[in-house]
Amino acid sequence: MSPERPRLSDDEFAAWLRREGERRYHDQHPFHLRMHRGELTREQLQQWVLNRYYYQSRVPIKDAIILSKSEDPAFRRMWIQRIHDHDGERAGEGGLALWLRLAEGVGLDLDEVAGFSRVLPGVRFACDGYVQLVQRVSLVEAVASSLTESFAPDLMSRRIEAWEKHYPWVRSDVLEYFRTRVTRARTDSEQAIDFVRRNATSYDLQERCVAALIRKTEILWHILDCLQAAP
Amino acid sequence: MSPERPRLSDDEFAAWLRREGERRYHDQHPFHLRMHRGELTREQLQQWVLNRYYYQSRVPIKDAIILSKSEDPAFRRMWIQRIHDHDGERAGEGGLALWLRLAEGVGLDLDEVAGFSRVLPGVRFACDGYVQLVQRVSLVEAVASSLTESFAPDLMSRRIEAWEKHYPWVRSDVLEYFRTRVTRARTDSEQAIDFVRRNATSYDLQERCVAALIRKTEILWHILDCLQAAP
Repeated sequence: MSPERPRLSDDEFAAWLRREGERRYHDQHPFHLRMHRGELTREQLQQWVLNRYYYQSRVPIKDAIILSKSEDPAFRRMWIQRIHDHDGERAGEGGLALWLRLAEGVGLDLDEVAGFSRVLPGVRFACDGYVQLVQRVSLVEAVASSLTESFAPDLMSRRIEAWEKHYPWVRSDVLEYFRTRVTRARTDSEQAIDFVRRNATSYDLQERCVAALIRKTEILWHILDCLQAAP
Repeated sequence: MSPERPRLSDDEFAAWLRREGERRYHDQHPFHLRMHRGELTREQLQQWVLNRYYYQSRVPIKDAIILSKSEDPAFRRMWIQRIHDHDGERAGEGGLALWLRLAEGVGLDLDEVAGFSRVLPGVRFACDGYVQLVQRVSLVEAVASSLTESFAPDLMSRRIEAWEKHYPWVRSDVLEYFRTRVTRARTDSEQAIDFVRRNATSYDLQERCVAALIRKTEILWHILDCLQAAP
């Protein structure tokens, strides 16, 4: 048996996570590049909004699983905020409702979006795979898988700009979800990276956190693969 | 194959749940009867508070699992309140903190209580069994398993009275947790029974809901079996 590798320093570990996450982040996916260059048709933009809603709908579910993995009321008090962010305090509020407003804004039928009937099979596999990943791994790995959001604020800012420029037929006010994510994703990812740094207490755990983050980038990437390949 | 039994009416079903739950509820356990007659020693009361805290600590965990099983933001907005009730909005608040105040009030060492080091093995099995039950079954069955709380308000009222009368060495203000449960358990159980009635859409599901509730009564009962048998 080879001797156990020593734990990386917090900063080395954070840099490793950032490096692996950043180079696999879906902002570099050809479909995203085309979206931001204004090259998507109305139908392709609709497809993206409709399919991505399935991903959005899995987020509070995976966050509730993460909540259930913690023994610490203080952690739970912090993490539960994410569920409120998506579900809102009352009907019509929160991130899921904002996404449905976006769906309406690009001309989709809301029942069809909310019913998931037209979600591409591969998108469903990838998103369900995310829920299963979070279910299977330890708390710290599950939290690490959420770290893709540390790259989200930049992407959201670029997206708002690109949509306003290239898709003027989409009313700017329906882009509100992206606007809320700029600040919220920053706070969320800072809390998550802080937790992961403190709780990945061995090299082995650090390595497994990186693996969970890589798997998550594959999930986001695959959603765009499916959209790219769609007729 | 025998033909499927027709679904019971909502009222028949609710009566069945009540009947099965009520006759197995742990208020009739010999240990509880002795507690309420003032026959427990200080050590036995401490044992109960310490072991029961392990149960309390599983409650927000099982509620987060229930949350993760729902596809409906409206249900989640309702159910998430239970997690806030136990964890509080900040450190020192919520049901778990109130239970620790009770633990202090009966003379226990808080670190020992919060660290679960003296929890009886059988109590741990039963409480972990509750988490596993909720994990394994469908959402409606998981919610049905929580219906023991519809019998809690009466028990809480009797408990406060009995403790104030028989255990005057316990300061009345540390009984606050029991007081909060009188109203809260009533609201919670009304929401839960309403959900179970609407969502147990076949006889088979109704039967499985009853089975989940029975299993839950066995969990609560077994905790007291362990305390009864403890030296």
